[in-house]
Amino acid sequence: MSIELFRNDHHLCLMFTDLFDGDGQAVQANQFLVIDHGEGALLDPGGNLAYNEMLLTLSRHIPPQKLSYLLASHADPDIIAALDRWMTSTPARLVISRIWERFAPHFTKVGKTDGRVIGVPDAGARLPLGQSELWLLPAHFMHSEGNFHFWDPVSRILFTGDLGVSLMTGRDAARPVTDLKAHIPLMEGFHRRYMVSNKVLRLWTRMARRLDIAMLVPQHGAPIVGQAAIGEFFDWIESLSCGVDLFDDRNYQLPTAVVDPQTMRVGGPLRAVAG
Amino acid sequence: MSIELFRNDHHLCLMFTDLFDGDGQAVQANQFLVIDHGEGALLDPGGNLAYNEMLLTLSRHIPPQKLSYLLASHADPDIIAALDRWMTSTPARLVISRIWERFAPHFTKVGKTDGRVIGVPDAGARLPLGQSELWLLPAHFMHSEGNFHFWDPVSRILFTGDLGVSLMTGRDAARPVTDLKAHIPLMEGFHRRYMVSNKVLRLWTRMARRLDIAMLVPQHGAPIVGQAAIGEFFDWIESLSCGVDLFDDRNYQLPTAVVDPQTMRVGGPLRAVAG
Repeated sequence: MSIELFRNDHHLCLMFTDLFDGDGQAVQANQFLVIDHGEGALLDPGGNLAYNEMLLTLSRHIPPQKLSYLLASHADPDIIAALDRWMTSTPARLVISRIWERFAPHFTKVGKTDGRVIGVPDAGARLPLGQSELWLLPAHFMHSEGNFHFWDPVSRILFTGDLGVSLMTGRDAARPVTDLKAHIPLMEGFHRRYMVSNKVLRLWTRMARRLDIAMLVPQHGAPIVGQAAIGEFFDWIESLSCGVDLFDDRNYQLPTAVVDPQTMRVGGPLRAVAG
Repeated sequence: MSIELFRNDHHLCLMFTDLFDGDGQAVQANQFLVIDHGEGALLDPGGNLAYNEMLLTLSRHIPPQKLSYLLASHADPDIIAALDRWMTSTPARLVISRIWERFAPHFTKVGKTDGRVIGVPDAGARLPLGQSELWLLPAHFMHSEGNFHFWDPVSRILFTGDLGVSLMTGRDAARPVTDLKAHIPLMEGFHRRYMVSNKVLRLWTRMARRLDIAMLVPQHGAPIVGQAAIGEFFDWIESLSCGVDLFDDRNYQLPTAVVDPQTMRVGGPLRAVAG
């Protein structure tokens, strides 16, 4: 099912929250299609679980030949693992951080990405699409070392990748959040472990506050909508300790727990070792 | 070509540095096979570029049915993008950080990883292999948020994933490094950008110094061999500023450069905008 985040005569933003069966094995993920004046871009198009449904759904809105770009916020499997297949079925170019530019070809067979990767420098860039632009905003270390968010100045949607993520089903992800307080418990654990440090959260927030944002849409979970909730999100995230802030010497010790190959569980008693 | 890092009657460690053509599009990557008493583990087996050669090479040393584990230091494409194919061609289980456990299935088609993922907690674990063990050592934020190095107590090799990486050809990666000073220029740029912070480098070094390491083997570039060079590596890495240490407000600004869709270059002059 596609969710229409924005539509006018020339511009369309769609969100997909349930392209694959969320059976608990794989984390739920959102994909996005932005079309301006007939030219399309897929944002964080996803892995092999989502590919077939995503291609089918895309074709209902735009001929695959009109897909100009695959925008990857970073190089994780839920973001872009189906790259080999997208390179075959569309003429799209991959737009990704310059620091992942030479890693992305490992997703594909030899030669598939030749001449089709736009490596974005750390400062970000504005990407022409139709008669508009998509902006690639620096979001490094949130979580990935080379990471971009996508700003659509027409819809005023900020696509924030792994920032603002909430862990839930695809069905729940379709419901926009306007009450941030009740939503924080669904975001907190993820952000404390996957975001790298409070320093970058503060630097990012200072930049993001300069935009007039209608909707903040993460790659997992529900959109955060409206000035009040977005303002509360900024207040929350810029004061969050996370990542390396919370790690100390206790987290870097030689391991003692043992994997039990039968149960596949970690933490059984140490085996008796001869000698 | 395989490089024998260690061999005795019951234990073998092999390194592969040139399984795919390093034509500059994709970063060079090493893969590793450890066999103890006839049971095998592939360490960071690589992406789709390496898969065919890796499977062929593996089969010369062990029947694919005897491959018990795919150890993934983290979830990047050069580490494990061929997961779908490994799940088909071997009975191996994927061993990966618990924080990437639900991301890894995005590499595969539906159901391929069901019941075959061992999620390792942040504290790490010891994994029985043959009559020995491989240790999964905490190496979080170096670079990946959920990251492990692999310690082989028999060969005394520490497989350090993205730590100690040097950027070079597969041929050069086959030559062990004993003079660290001359090697640092090949490591420095990568570590300053991809390692997350000096704090974690210090915490990791304090742990690693407790091991009696014969060889420190990264996933890109050449092994660092011998007590002197390894000691110098520890001294260098624990004093390196990197990642978020080096990022400030200048790195989080709204972008001004524009992508030129024709040349695919970033940085052309801003287009005239109507209105």
